[in-house]
Amino acid sequence: MKEVRLERMGPIAHLVLDHPQTRNALSLSVIEAIMTRLDEVGRDPAVRVLILRGEGPAFCAGHNLKEMIAPEADLHAHRRLFSTCSRMMLQLHRLPQIVIAQVHGIATAAGCQLVAACDLAVAESGARFATPGVKIGLFCTTPMVPLVRVIGRRRAMEMLVTGRFVSAQEALDWGLVNRVVPLERLSEETMELAESIASFSRFTLSFGKEAFYSQVDLDEGSAYDFAKEAIAFNCLADDAQEGMRAFVEKRAPIWKHR
Amino acid sequence: MKEVRLERMGPIAHLVLDHPQTRNALSLSVIEAIMTRLDEVGRDPAVRVLILRGEGPAFCAGHNLKEMIAPEADLHAHRRLFSTCSRMMLQLHRLPQIVIAQVHGIATAAGCQLVAACDLAVAESGARFATPGVKIGLFCTTPMVPLVRVIGRRRAMEMLVTGRFVSAQEALDWGLVNRVVPLERLSEETMELAESIASFSRFTLSFGKEAFYSQVDLDEGSAYDFAKEAIAFNCLADDAQEGMRAFVEKRAPIWKHR
Amino acid sequence: MKEVRLERMGPIAHLVLDHPQTRNALSLSVIEAIMTRLDEVGRDPAVRVLILRGEGPAFCAGHNLKEMIAPEADLHAHRRLFSTCSRMMLQLHRLPQIVIAQVHGIATAAGCQLVAACDLAVAESGARFATPGVKIGLFCTTPMVPLVRVIGRRRAMEMLVTGRFVSAQEALDWGLVNRVVPLERLSEETMELAESIASFSRFTLSFGKEAFYSQVDLDEGSAYDFAKEAIAFNCLADDAQEGMRAFVEKRAPIWKHR
Repeated sequence: MKEVRLERMGPIAHLVLDHPQTRNALSLSVIEAIMTRLDEVGRDPAVRVLILRGEGPAFCAGHNLKEMIAPEADLHAHRRLFSTCSRMMLQLHRLPQIVIAQVHGIATAAGCQLVAACDLAVAESGARFATPGVKIGLFCTTPMVPLVRVIGRRRAMEMLVTGRFVSAQEALDWGLVNRVVPLERLSEETMELAESIASFSRFTLSFGKEAFYSQVDLDEGSAYDFAKEAIAFNCLADDAQEGMRAFVEKRAPIWKHR
Repeated sequence: MKEVRLERMGPIAHLVLDHPQTRNALSLSVIEAIMTRLDEVGRDPAVRVLILRGEGPAFCAGHNLKEMIAPEADLHAHRRLFSTCSRMMLQLHRLPQIVIAQVHGIATAAGCQLVAACDLAVAESGARFATPGVKIGLFCTTPMVPLVRVIGRRRAMEMLVTGRFVSAQEALDWGLVNRVVPLERLSEETMELAESIASFSRFTLSFGKEAFYSQVDLDEGSAYDFAKEAIAFNCLADDAQEGMRAFVEKRAPIWKHR
Repeated sequence: MKEVRLERMGPIAHLVLDHPQTRNALSLSVIEAIMTRLDEVGRDPAVRVLILRGEGPAFCAGHNLKEMIAPEADLHAHRRLFSTCSRMMLQLHRLPQIVIAQVHGIATAAGCQLVAACDLAVAESGARFATPGVKIGLFCTTPMVPLVRVIGRRRAMEMLVTGRFVSAQEALDWGLVNRVVPLERLSEETMELAESIASFSRFTLSFGKEAFYSQVDLDEGSAYDFAKEAIAFNCLADDAQEGMRAFVEKRAPIWKHR
């Protein structure tokens, strides 16, 4: 599907939403295409970081409203749309690669959810974020799931019940994005962040990411029960043994799982 | 009860704590009066936003200590007080209206809890927040429940074990309040925020608020299981259908549930 | 063990990591020594606040890598190390005293975890924090447990997958530390914070700290069920009765549990 493009260049891949006419709307077919591409990336051992970006004036403006008010859009259709979309968002957490949202223009509704669901995010200084569903009678119920978990209760509630746009600077202050950079440096800075991560062992990154999401929703005691066992096994891994040895020997490590 | 006044003006109501002599202390009778008023508001389909404010020099200074050291204040009495107070705080989450705390002067102990338990908060720049129970040997145990969930562990712990006052600016930086404005503009700015929310569909606001608190304490996967089903039903609602159509047709929506 | 020193001066004790050659590395024997000292502090009714600090150029640089790549370091040894270390971190939560990390230089990996696991933290303005395990193939899996719970998902993920140093100012903005002060005032300001806390009732502080960690991972309704019962009992305590009476009588309280 040409609306969703996968570009690979060594250890860093780009998943590009390319349907500017709809401001990269997440119609069911686009979501399914994203999932297919994510599957593809997930199986590719050469890729260690995935950058998610959009072509045209906006990062992503959410779902396709025309699809949602079509005569055939019954409860079954809505369930299928949101169930598929939720699976896609969770697939981002389960992907062995680190996923960075590269945000320009607007990221609204499910587009804002997409930013919150990625592991990291870089935004250009003019980027704006909103969950404006309340304005059209459709509360951003699924977007709020990752949003409140990333920016906290009070700020998520404000976004949800006012629908107002949040600036890139606010998004940075609230922890929705990790960096804000001028538009002309957006690709470059995102790539720089991606490259710094991609220099690490693929094994360690995917192991660590999986461990992160496995423990984040547990109570602290249970999280430790999980984490202490996970890290003990991590110690035995080739790349940990090599990394620790290289550090002690003051040399650069040579990863087995590049 | 004259200490707790309900003022309604169309879609926005004010719940006013009016007992300046006790700095609007939350005695058992005041808490019960608040609950009665909240019940009343909850059943009123004309109200979409509730502003909670206090008369006199303080927003609310917590419980009434005189009541708590009275000869008849035994374990049973304390249990009744805190059990009732906790139900009142949770009632704010369950209310179909969006509740905004309008904070001036001090908000301490259960008064600070009240701010944290509302959905949103606006404070005047001189407002100050504290959980000073530790200073009188009575740890702010119930206030910490919503406080730590809104401002996070480290800052909540500091407030709890030092009892120090936190400024309006800190409260904004920490996400305890959504806006800080000059005292002379406090009512006006709170009303402006309330009006922007009250322009939306009552159905959508109450549906969304209930969904927010239903999923906020779940693990992310369970939250999606809930949210995807909730939003699919939301799509079928009259006001969502109207809102989406109005958006596509580039006109203002006419809510059924005004 | 001379690497871990306990200094007591009235109500405030210092636990001092004193092995500058390893930058206060948390080898198994050091961790066990810390646990012994914590046990000792926990049983001492004279101590109300514990300050945790390090001698030499760094607060703490994490585990001892040499120990971890030694020939005898098998899965069993790694399990023992991380299991013991996790118990030590949780012991900080269970200690009846309030624990303040006094951070200078670097706090990395398990050293950064130690900061996150304390109740409060004060840092000098040049202090830096990192979870750099990813650089040596060993993802900071156990450090992330308290870290993500203190600074949130997005910022924790960034620290974990980039390994980059976070400045004291960022640590303050993110809620990892409570105060940033010039290096020359670090001991003094930490002591000032400790003294302000140590003036309160020992009973109330230990009761409150235990209540904090007992409810922080519960859903809000369950947290209230716990907290309302806890505070009702707190009301009956001698120091609460004295504190409330002293407040009403406008005099300083005289704690039974000094």
